[in-house]
Amino acid sequence: MILVKDAESLILDLVKPLEEYEEVNLDKVLGRILAQDILSDLDFPPWHNSAMDGYAFCHGHLDQFETLTIASSHIPAGSSQDLAINKGECVRIFTGGILPLGADTVVMQEDVEIVRDIVGIQSGGRHLEENRLKLKTSPKLGDYVRQKGEYYRAGEILLKSGIRINPPEIGILAATQHQMLRVFRQPRVSIISTGNELKEISSSLQKGQIVDSNQYALSGSIAQIGAVPISMGIVRDRPEDLSEIILKALSLSDFVISSGGVSVGDYDYVENVLADLGGDIHIRSCAIKPGKPFTVASFGHKLYFGVPGNPASAMVCFWRFIKGAIAKLSGVTGGVISPDGHLNSQTNSQYWYPQYIQAIALQDLHAQGQRETYLSGYLAWEHNYQRWQFQPVSNHSSGNLISWAGVNGLAILKVNQTYIPKGDTALIMML
Amino acid sequence: MILVKDAESLILDLVKPLEEYEEVNLDKVLGRILAQDILSDLDFPPWHNSAMDGYAFCHGHLDQFETLTIASSHIPAGSSQDLAINKGECVRIFTGGILPLGADTVVMQEDVEIVRDIVGIQSGGRHLEENRLKLKTSPKLGDYVRQKGEYYRAGEILLKSGIRINPPEIGILAATQHQMLRVFRQPRVSIISTGNELKEISSSLQKGQIVDSNQYALSGSIAQIGAVPISMGIVRDRPEDLSEIILKALSLSDFVISSGGVSVGDYDYVENVLADLGGDIHIRSCAIKPGKPFTVASFGHKLYFGVPGNPASAMVCFWRFIKGAIAKLSGVTGGVISPDGHLNSQTNSQYWYPQYIQAIALQDLHAQGQRETYLSGYLAWEHNYQRWQFQPVSNHSSGNLISWAGVNGLAILKVNQTYIPKGDTALIMML
Repeated sequence: MILVKDAESLILDLVKPLEEYEEVNLDKVLGRILAQDILSDLDFPPWHNSAMDGYAFCHGHLDQFETLTIASSHIPAGSSQDLAINKGECVRIFTGGILPLGADTVVMQEDVEIVRDIVGIQSGGRHLEENRLKLKTSPKLGDYVRQKGEYYRAGEILLKSGIRINPPEIGILAATQHQMLRVFRQPRVSIISTGNELKEISSSLQKGQIVDSNQYALSGSIAQIGAVPISMGIVRDRPEDLSEIILKALSLSDFVISSGGVSVGDYDYVENVLADLGGDIHIRSCAIKPGKPFTVASFGHKLYFGVPGNPASAMVCFWRFIKGAIAKLSGVTGGVISPDGHLNSQTNSQYWYPQYIQAIALQDLHAQGQRETYLSGYLAWEHNYQRWQFQPVSNHSSGNLISWAGVNGLAILKVNQTYIPKGDTALIMML
Repeated sequence: MILVKDAESLILDLVKPLEEYEEVNLDKVLGRILAQDILSDLDFPPWHNSAMDGYAFCHGHLDQFETLTIASSHIPAGSSQDLAINKGECVRIFTGGILPLGADTVVMQEDVEIVRDIVGIQSGGRHLEENRLKLKTSPKLGDYVRQKGEYYRAGEILLKSGIRINPPEIGILAATQHQMLRVFRQPRVSIISTGNELKEISSSLQKGQIVDSNQYALSGSIAQIGAVPISMGIVRDRPEDLSEIILKALSLSDFVISSGGVSVGDYDYVENVLADLGGDIHIRSCAIKPGKPFTVASFGHKLYFGVPGNPASAMVCFWRFIKGAIAKLSGVTGGVISPDGHLNSQTNSQYWYPQYIQAIALQDLHAQGQRETYLSGYLAWEHNYQRWQFQPVSNHSSGNLISWAGVNGLAILKVNQTYIPKGDTALIMML
């Protein structure tokens, strides 16, 4: 019986990322995994520009002029005029506007006063006036100027292959005019449900029969992480039927998940069938509760996951092991924190591994201690104490998915840990 | 300038959940919001059944019999036979199998020994033998039996209207044969980009021009939370154009988001146009950095969000305020923790409000203190210390989305908080 941690490592080591790609338009690329490094031949920002609505000027001029002459032209964002300012002059500028030649600093419009100055006498004795700018603050050189190349230097890698494309990456790709992207194709995962007691959802149930709910719950779980579920339906507990459907599933998909038939009962044929078909069996059972009969086999690069038929066990095996394996298969990078504690911005580990959190247990948590135990419940952020709380569901039977409505976390009790009292901190796997 | 917390409350108070519904098949229902209470007229489990592969017997018989007679029949899962056991008898049973009449306890097959007993002499002197069961443990009454109705009693509410349908809920709906579901229709959110400097992604950029990346990043953000983005394209900084497109967007959608044009510059017409169109303006600016010019107006039940044009500001306003507003609009319940600390399983708050976490800052975090400041960075779980770490990005300019690749958290420095030293705990909003 392999330990949970060892099973996780063993499985991730077995997974080989896909090497098939497709071209997808930026407006369809959300959640996909980038399969090319993205570079730009433009700096960002591409020009010195203003970070604020205000006035651009040369910082050096402040020593010589108490007020600055406001030039007649102004610089809205989007203007492509090449302006230059003269000595003692400033120019009205708007956020994103290109800094005029000679200017190096911007003052916010909130920090200035416009004064009218008499600069001469017109014929007829009328004063000739002009608007002048008086600063209410003492700006530092470069204030409110976004320097050309400050965010990004042309030719550097902007997005690395293997990153998941979330909204910020979509913004980056748009800004740098990358409209067609090479991405990994989505992993295909087949689902087989085994068991003579199982019926389709629309069937009229006889006594002893239940609906094959794992097919639906696993299908949703696979779709939720960006892979393509392929429903293979229900197969009776007969080795020859099982063998046939497993071969078909392997031919259609990258991974196969079956539920049921992996325990040690008289009707549990999965492991024998996998061996007969020439699969390498890597895991026959795991020290996890629920989920002990969890089985892993490989057929070349294709992996087969046999999860128990009990719905709670099936989901726990999926979340703890299969989700991360599909992530690695999908091409997403699963980097690590370096020894000096520095995270690599583009290779975070959140997709290969579960995400954990420390939370206060609102009820006593119990386990038997032989296996690492996962107890489902509800995680919520407690505003007053700025901490997470965990309320376990009332019934932890592995056959029970019925009381799992709204569940978003699994409390973990390690091997030999039998009790976490109410009020103590528990380690929670976030769903 | 409204405080962030007050803006959040004000906005959520303005949102009225949709009251339009549609019928969706279970295989298309992932991520949708249930718009009906779900009940079942069956108990779950529907019959007393075995939680294990083993033997079913009557616990009371153990006082009278040292070993139990193994009945010739057995009970696989899915069997609908009505069996009854006789005194001193046990029946081979498999996980999910219906408990025979007279039985109340199951012993796992791992915990028994099969002994052969001589029960008579056949004609010809041959011993008449039978298999008998010897228990290696002392089972408690009811062991490994799933009681009828233990998980759910017929007629109670199984799933409440307003719950988000995730994989566990899909499993529950399948198990209880709910194939067509009434769900809230998806919210429709229009996106308008304002600014003379903006160009479409495929344009050839002139000096001073930039791609309208907000349209893409916001569209992805809206789709990611299960709403339908409607791209209204780019509008020039002219009040009459703005007015026309805002009216069109309001007619097409439930919420409108525009980026740009909300500051106090000469080209910032959004607020005036909203007022001219008869909108009620609720927020004109907010004490958040980036995102100060954030504007909120209402036209009846339809809300208008004006976010700044700077891409980082636009995203922060979306994540901090608009995401939760769309969630409430979508019909998802946003419950709270009750005063006694008990979470209601089916009304958790994770969708209306950001999710937070405490993490160790790997760099000093600085803010100016006037506004609540959100600094983007990379969150990762540190396995060795069982805690989260936060590495800020190197450049926090509000114009800079370019260095946001892989960003998954925003560190928060409250008003008057100017510094969190490296190594201290920071409050992080998870993305």
